[in-house]
Amino acid sequence: MKVILLGSGNTATVLAKMIVKAEHEVVQVWSRNFDHAKALAAKVRAQPIATLDELSGEADLCIMAVSDAAIPQLAKQLQLRRKVLVHTAGSVSRDVLRNSSPNYGVLYPLQSLRKEMLVIPPVPFLIDGNSDEVNALLEDFAHSLSDNVQFVDDAARLNMHLAAVMVSNFTNHLYALTEDYCKDRNLDFKLLHPLIIEVACRLTQGHAVDMQTGPARRGDEETIKKHLLLLEIDEHLQDLYRELSESIQKLYRKK
Amino acid sequence: MKVILLGSGNTATVLAKMIVKAEHEVVQVWSRNFDHAKALAAKVRAQPIATLDELSGEADLCIMAVSDAAIPQLAKQLQLRRKVLVHTAGSVSRDVLRNSSPNYGVLYPLQSLRKEMLVIPPVPFLIDGNSDEVNALLEDFAHSLSDNVQFVDDAARLNMHLAAVMVSNFTNHLYALTEDYCKDRNLDFKLLHPLIIEVACRLTQGHAVDMQTGPARRGDEETIKKHLLLLEIDEHLQDLYRELSESIQKLYRKK
Repeated sequence: MKVILLGSGNTATVLAKMIVKAEHEVVQVWSRNFDHAKALAAKVRAQPIATLDELSGEADLCIMAVSDAAIPQLAKQLQLRRKVLVHTAGSVSRDVLRNSSPNYGVLYPLQSLRKEMLVIPPVPFLIDGNSDEVNALLEDFAHSLSDNVQFVDDAARLNMHLAAVMVSNFTNHLYALTEDYCKDRNLDFKLLHPLIIEVACRLTQGHAVDMQTGPARRGDEETIKKHLLLLEIDEHLQDLYRELSESIQKLYRKK
Repeated sequence: MKVILLGSGNTATVLAKMIVKAEHEVVQVWSRNFDHAKALAAKVRAQPIATLDELSGEADLCIMAVSDAAIPQLAKQLQLRRKVLVHTAGSVSRDVLRNSSPNYGVLYPLQSLRKEMLVIPPVPFLIDGNSDEVNALLEDFAHSLSDNVQFVDDAARLNMHLAAVMVSNFTNHLYALTEDYCKDRNLDFKLLHPLIIEVACRLTQGHAVDMQTGPARRGDEETIKKHLLLLEIDEHLQDLYRELSESIQKLYRKK
C-alpha cells in the first residue's frame, strides 16, 4: 500500500518504521515543521513536503498522526477526493474527518510509542471506518502491522484511551516519583526493576484484583503509619500514598 | 546450609523453593497453623513441627517469614543459642530480634512473592546482620539464591519498602481498577497487556521521568476534560484520575 504520513512526532515516526517493515511504501511525509518532515522522510526514503498542496495523488491511505489538539485544524485544510484518511487519536471522534474525505476512519495504536524506541513492542490497533470498504482496507493494513486488530467505535475507543492512561501514564508517573524519592535518599532505584516487571507481566496469568499484595491489602495499619511518617517531608507524595492506600482498602471492603 | 523456616505464607513458600533449588536443606517448617506447616514441609521434604520447642539444634539459619505484625510476638517466644535468626520484613527493625538470638539480622526479598508462582522471578535481597560473621553468612546464603544482594540498614530498608509499595502495590491497584472499568464497559482488558508490559520494561532503558507521555504530560486539557466527564458516574475513579493528572502536571512544571 502507498501511504502518506502527516506528522513527525512519536506516533508518526514509529508508524513509519512499522509501515516500511511491513513492505508498504511511505510516499510522502508532511509536518508543520519542514525540517522534521525531512528528517523522518529520510529515514523511510519518502518525499518530504512543505505544504499540503503537494499531496500525491498516488497514495491509498493518508495517516494523520498529529497531537489530538491539532487534528480539527489540520482536517479543515484537507480536501481529499478518494484516499482513505485516518487519524490515530484515542480520544477524538471519527467524525472530525467527515468533511475532509469521502473515505475516513480511525487507526488507533493502543501502545506507548516513542521515537527513540529501538525495539517496537506489539501494538494492538483499534480501527473504525465510515464504510465497509474503508473498514476492509483498514483491517488489511492494520493486520499487516499487527496480530491484534479490533473494530472499536468512538465511544468504546474513548473508554479504552482512558483505560490506557490509567495503566500506562499513571503507572509511569508512580515510577517517576519513586525514582526521585530513591535518588533523594541515595537508594538504587534499579533494585526495583525486577519487582516492577514481575507485577506487570503476571497480569497475563490472572486478574489484577487477585494479585494485590501490600500493607493496604493486608490492613497493616502499623506499616502504613510508618510510611506516612517517612513522607512527612513530602506532603504531595504523602497525599498520593494516603489516597491510593484508601482506594485499595475501599476496593477490598466492597468485594 | 541447613535452614529452619518459620511461616508458611507467600514469602516462606517461595523462599523454601529457592532454598531447595540452591541445594541447601530445609530441615524444619513451623507455622501457627500445623496443617500449613505440613503442606509446605511436604513440598521440600522437611519436618513439620507444631511447637517452637521442637526446633532442631542442627540448623545454621532460622528464617522468620511471617507477617510484619506477627514478628515481635514470635520473636519473644524464641531463645536461640547460636543459630542466625533473620526476619524477611521490609518495614521492621533488625533490633526486634535482639533478645532472641546472639546472631540476628534481616534477609529482605525485594520482590512480590506469591505461593502460586510457577516461575520465580529475579529476587534482589537486602541484608543486614548484627556482626561481621552474621553478615558473611547472610551474604553467602543470599548470593546462592540471587545475583543481586546488597547490605542495607534499617532506615534505608524502610525507605526501599515504601518505594516498593509505590511501584508495585499502587500500580497493581491501578491495573485492578482499570480491569473493573473495562469489564463494566464490555472492553477487553487484555488489549492493554502489551502497553502495560512496555511501560514497565522500558525503565531499564532510561529514566521514568523522561518516558512520561499522555494528556497530563502534554497539557492536553481537552482530553483530560473528556475523561473526567466519562468518570462522572464513578466519583472515586474520577478523584484518582484528577489527583494523578495534577501530580503529573506539578512534576513537570517544577522541572
